[in-house]
Formats: sequence, structure tokens, C-alpha cells
Amino acid sequence: MAKDTPIYARRLGEIQPFRVMKLLARANELEKQGGNVIHMEVGEPDFPTPKPIVQAGQQALLEGRTRYTPAPGIPELREAVSSYYRSEYDLDISPQRIFITAGASGALLLTSALLMNHGEGLLMTDPGYPCNRHFLKAFHGEGQLVPVTPSTNYQLTAELVSRYWQANTRGVLLASPANPTGAVLDQPTLRQLYELVQNKHGYLVVDEIYHGLIYQQTGKRRNVSVLEVGQEAFVINSFSKYFGMTGWRLGWLVAPTSAIEELDKLAQNLFICPSSIAQYAALSAFSAASLEIMEKQRAAFAERRDFLVPGLKKLGFSIPVTPEGAFYVYAGLPPGSGLSERFCDDLLEQYLVAITPGTDFGFHLADEHVRFTYAEDMTRLAEALERIEKALG
Amino acid sequence: MAKDTPIYARRLGEIQPFRVMKLLARANELEKQGGNVIHMEVGEPDFPTPKPIVQAGQQALLEGRTRYTPAPGIPELREAVSSYYRSEYDLDISPQRIFITAGASGALLLTSALLMNHGEGLLMTDPGYPCNRHFLKAFHGEGQLVPVTPSTNYQLTAELVSRYWQANTRGVLLASPANPTGAVLDQPTLRQLYELVQNKHGYLVVDEIYHGLIYQQTGKRRNVSVLEVGQEAFVINSFSKYFGMTGWRLGWLVAPTSAIEELDKLAQNLFICPSSIAQYAALSAFSAASLEIMEKQRAAFAERRDFLVPGLKKLGFSIPVTPEGAFYVYAGLPPGSGLSERFCDDLLEQYLVAITPGTDFGFHLADEHVRFTYAEDMTRLAEALERIEKALG
Repeated sequence: MAKDTPIYARRLGEIQPFRVMKLLARANELEKQGGNVIHMEVGEPDFPTPKPIVQAGQQALLEGRTRYTPAPGIPELREAVSSYYRSEYDLDISPQRIFITAGASGALLLTSALLMNHGEGLLMTDPGYPCNRHFLKAFHGEGQLVPVTPSTNYQLTAELVSRYWQANTRGVLLASPANPTGAVLDQPTLRQLYELVQNKHGYLVVDEIYHGLIYQQTGKRRNVSVLEVGQEAFVINSFSKYFGMTGWRLGWLVAPTSAIEELDKLAQNLFICPSSIAQYAALSAFSAASLEIMEKQRAAFAERRDFLVPGLKKLGFSIPVTPEGAFYVYAGLPPGSGLSERFCDDLLEQYLVAITPGTDFGFHLADEHVRFTYAEDMTRLAEALERIEKALG
Repeated sequence: MAKDTPIYARRLGEIQPFRVMKLLARANELEKQGGNVIHMEVGEPDFPTPKPIVQAGQQALLEGRTRYTPAPGIPELREAVSSYYRSEYDLDISPQRIFITAGASGALLLTSALLMNHGEGLLMTDPGYPCNRHFLKAFHGEGQLVPVTPSTNYQLTAELVSRYWQANTRGVLLASPANPTGAVLDQPTLRQLYELVQNKHGYLVVDEIYHGLIYQQTGKRRNVSVLEVGQEAFVINSFSKYFGMTGWRLGWLVAPTSAIEELDKLAQNLFICPSSIAQYAALSAFSAASLEIMEKQRAAFAERRDFLVPGLKKLGFSIPVTPEGAFYVYAGLPPGSGLSERFCDDLLEQYLVAITPGTDFGFHLADEHVRFTYAEDMTRLAEALERIEKALG
């Protein structure tokens, strides 16, 4: 009965709030009171949406592109994403396999609805993006957390997957570059994981939303996609991060051919369609003018990483694996810093630097870790390091 | 194992495609081939988004409102919706109870995730909006269909709810004005239903997305909201229909105070936030200038209804209850017209009039009914009646 305890669905007790959103709210509150807060908490680029994309959005409004679109997205955008796979990855992905969604969130939601039977689950890393396991839980499945350490670059390996696979495991969710660690999977590891999951007749879901944001020695933005290894994986991607379109809410899912029909049905029923304006705007996301802007931003992120990582190490933070992508540094607290949630609260309240405690990303050594986002400029990052030094006393 | 049949989650077999989307795709195909198709299939106003709202969207882009917002929406918009409840319904609804979502779809999704335990369900009308039961099914619940007839104005009554309530029933989902029937619930019936569900400690969800689109004798747009009856109901609403913002994907949910915390958590995890641009644009949806435009459109819809209903009756369609709201006519086929799906296919292929078969809305007498949308202008509606007359031979 609704009036018993719990009032609402039983599984909600296993879904945690996305803590960083509360932290952000508190940081904004302090800012309103006049505090000069340095924001290193939210996973959002500090750069505005590239101008060519904004202009395309304005044009879309002028042209009255404000009606429902087909549920999996306008054909032009599905074609454009397909072309991007050709030009960027040398891959031939049919537009029919590409579903445009409201952010990567929409893609994760579709995938969870598609795959989850009651009480089954997917293996995933701890630490990892917390919403992943909550998506599965919302659909009555579970994220089966595998503790990962620097010894495997904070990523899953075929060995770990074999060891942790349970009777109710239906597959594996990977992320590369990963949140919160910035760790990137190399092609041999990805291939081993793909083949293992195929052999187990399982599902492989790969979060590639930070593709494009990679800071290798070579200076190339080229990421390895699981689609280079095989076509039976689900790929989650987004216009939010590399393309700088967070608030527009636009992403995409690449699915195996066998899933197209069911996904069409789910997208029609659950979403009707993604934002028409965002879709028409995103047609300009792959233009040379946009890519030029985004590549400059990538260079800025690389510079920040190369400044922040040694800076934090100097202050006593432990960063055993240099993050190769995304815009995060996952760091062990210096000895004697206390627990991560308390550390983050104090840093925000007393020094106005907002960072995220490890507890937002799982359980494994979460009290000893924090995540820094480098979505502030160099001057602000330098200022942040000074404040953190003071905080450490 | 994933390679068995079915490949994906077992419950997907019980989720049907939203047929009207396929019909629309076929209609658009015929149009591309040069066919002059009259669109009476999709539930979308033919009017563009009112200019003040579009202009506010353009302004939002100029001002760079392209970042993540709080998960339940920007405070200004939650306040604006709250003020609308005060001015329109004379109700005092706290902004904290108002969650801005990606269309009514997002609100239905949140509500389904919040309420559904495995194998439990909500009572709802047959015919009804098909996605409602599919939302519940996606979250491992079920829509428990109650056949309704003109004798109860195609709506549920306390008597029907009592009769159909099962051991695994957790509540009731109502819609007023309803899709596909245009039927409106009066306040006494709504109050009886509210009280019955409260007595059963159940959930009451009311779809009010066609509020504002009502064509009473008095000429007022005033709808009865369940919130006038009590505060323990969930209200689904939308900027899509009356406010003409379909492609923007924006709606809202009003929830009981007891649900705020869980909904916050779900919105953070499942959506991050609704479209920032749509939210800033919607701030202009309640302005006098916007309301003036929308009221003119409402008058146009009223005129169309008053033309279409007698016109269809003259052709032999049975419309025992005059639709009072939304922009639909749910009609029994003239005797000898065959089954509704075949009828709709033939009408589209041979006469280029797109309408929706009753089978899209449930099972009860679905083969004998069709739904007409009056989102085409008077000239086109007259032309449609002529073509339908020919089709009936």
C-alpha cells in the first residue's frame, strides 16, 4: 500500500542522489553571497557552445524548426553522425544504427530499458560514473561494481570480467575516456574485452562521451572506438563534452542491427523525439569551423592537465596514472587529510574551491579520493592550487 | 543468455510501436512523391510556436544559456509555472513541487520510475494514450486497461475503479481532456475518484497535457485540475499542446510533497536537466502576448471541431459523445467499413488522408474506431471530408 514505508518503489533506496549536483547548488549559494568560488566540481566544459552551432540553432528558430521530429532523430543528423564515423574513425556505420537522444542520458536510458530483465546486471568499474548503475537500477537491473586500481589503469580487463562474472551478469559497461579517472582503454584491451563478452553471449556497452577530449603525446584527438573492434556493441556518445552542447541535451546511441526495431519502439514511446532545435543546431557541429574551435579548446584542456597534475602531486595528492582524456583528475588525498566528503565540504566552505568527493563515484577507496575537474582557466587553476595548499596547512 | 530468443529484455514483447509514427512516416513518404496529404494523424498543433516564445529562445541563445541547469529546472520557470497555477486555477502550488521535464514524456517517465514495483500496475482507460501503459511496462509495471464507453463519457468512474481494482493495482491514471476521445472529467467525478484512490492508499496520476484546449459553451479555457480537489495527486503537464512547443521537448510534473526528494534524485540521475534553451524560452509562454495568440488558436480549434464533428456524423461515423477538449475526434466507423487499420491504410494510400486506427489506443472495440486530429485548417478539413466521402463510396 502506498501509505506503508517506503511510500514509493522499493528499489529507490538503492539510488543515490548525484552528490555533485548538491555540491554545485551549495557552491552557487556561496557565490550569490559574494564568494569567489572556483568550480572544479561539475563535468561541464567552461567554454560556451561553439558559435557556428549557436548560429545554426538561431537559424533553426528562424525557420520554425519547432515541431516533432522522427523518434530516432532527423535523417540529416543521423547521416551527419554516420559521416563523422567515416571521417574520424574510418568506419562505415549505417545511419539506421544511430539513434539521436536527449544527451547521453537519453542513450543510457534507452539502453537500460532495452537490456534489463528484473534482477540482472552489467559489470562496471568502481570508481565510475554514478548514474550508470542508477540507470540500471531504475529499470530493475543492477550495476555490478568491480573495484579497479592503477594496476589496470582504472579500467576493466578480460581477467577482471571473467573473475567477477556472475550467474545474473548479462554484460559489461565500459567507459573510455572514463569519468572520474580520465583513463583510456587501448585497442588490444578493448578487443579482449569485446571477444570475451561475445563468447559469453553478453552485451557490451561502451560510454564514449569524452571522445575527442584526449591528450596523447602525438597531439591527435583520435580515440579508439569499440566499433573498430566489432559491431555488436552499444556505443553511448554525446554532443555535450567535446562539442560543448551540455544544456542543449543531445547525444546519440550506436546500436547493433539486431536492436534497431526494439529501440525504435522504445524511443517512440519514451521520448517521442529529441529537441528539434538542438538537432538542427548539431548539424553544424561537424563543420570545419566548429572543429577548429573545439580543437583549440582541446589544446587548452591539455595545457591545464599538464599544469594541474604535477601541481597536485607537489601538494601531496597521489595520481599514480596520468589521466589521458576527459577533463578530470582522480587523486588520492594526501595522508592525514581525513575523509573525502568532509575534505570537500571544508574546502568549499572555507576556501571556496568546489571539488567532488570519491564517494560520488562508488565505494572502493572512495573516502580516500577526490575528483578535480579542469574546466576553469589557467589563472583560476593556479589560484585553486594556492587555496588548496592553504587548506592542507 | 543474450543470444537466446528474445535477444533483449523479455517485457519488450508487450511494448507496441506507437503506430501513428509509422503512419506519419508513410504519409511523409507519399508527400515526397508529390502527394497532397491531409495530416489528421499526429497529435501536434498545426500552429507554429507563438512568436514571443521563439523570440525568448533566440534571446536565450544570444545570452549563451546553453549550460546545464538544475535537474528539476531553473527556479524562474518553476516559479512561473507556480504563478500560472495561481492566476489560472487560483491554486497555491509550491515551486518545489514542480519538476520541469523533457516534455510530458519526461514527466511520465519520472512518475513511472518513482511508482512502479515489479509486476504492479495502474488502472487506465481503454481507449487511451498508448505510451502510458508502455511507460509502466518499461519500468516492469503494467497498465491495467479498463474498457470505457460513451456511457461514462469514455472516462473512468469510482464505480469502474472499484470494480477493476486488483491485488497488484497501485493506483489510477486519468487523462482530462483525454486522448483519443477529447473527453473531459467534471469536478464531482474527479473528486469521487480522488477520494476513492486516497481511501485505497493508492497513487493518482492525472494527465492534464491538453489543459487550455477546451471548447465549452461558455468560451472559457478554464479546466478543472485534480489539484483543486487535493494535493496527493501527480499531475503531468506539457508546453507542447496549448503552448505550441512540441519540438522543444518541455513539460512539467506536479508531485505531492512526499515525493520531492525521490524525484530530485531520479531527475538528477536520469536526465541531468531539461533543455536550457527551451526552459528560458518557456518563461515567455505565460505572457499576455503569448496567451493572446494561444487563445486565438483555441478559437480556431473550436471552430474546426464544430465543423468536423457534424461533418463526420453526416458521413455515417458514430460520435455519441461530443469531444470537449484536445484536438481529436474519436469516431466509430460507418457500418461496412471493415477493420480500422485496413480502413486507415486505404484512406492514406488511395485518398491521401492520414488518420489513426483505434488499435493505436488499446483493444476495446479498437477495430471499429478511428481517431481524427483537427490540426489542419478549415479548407483542408472540408477537403478531407470530401475525400472520405469518396472513400466510403
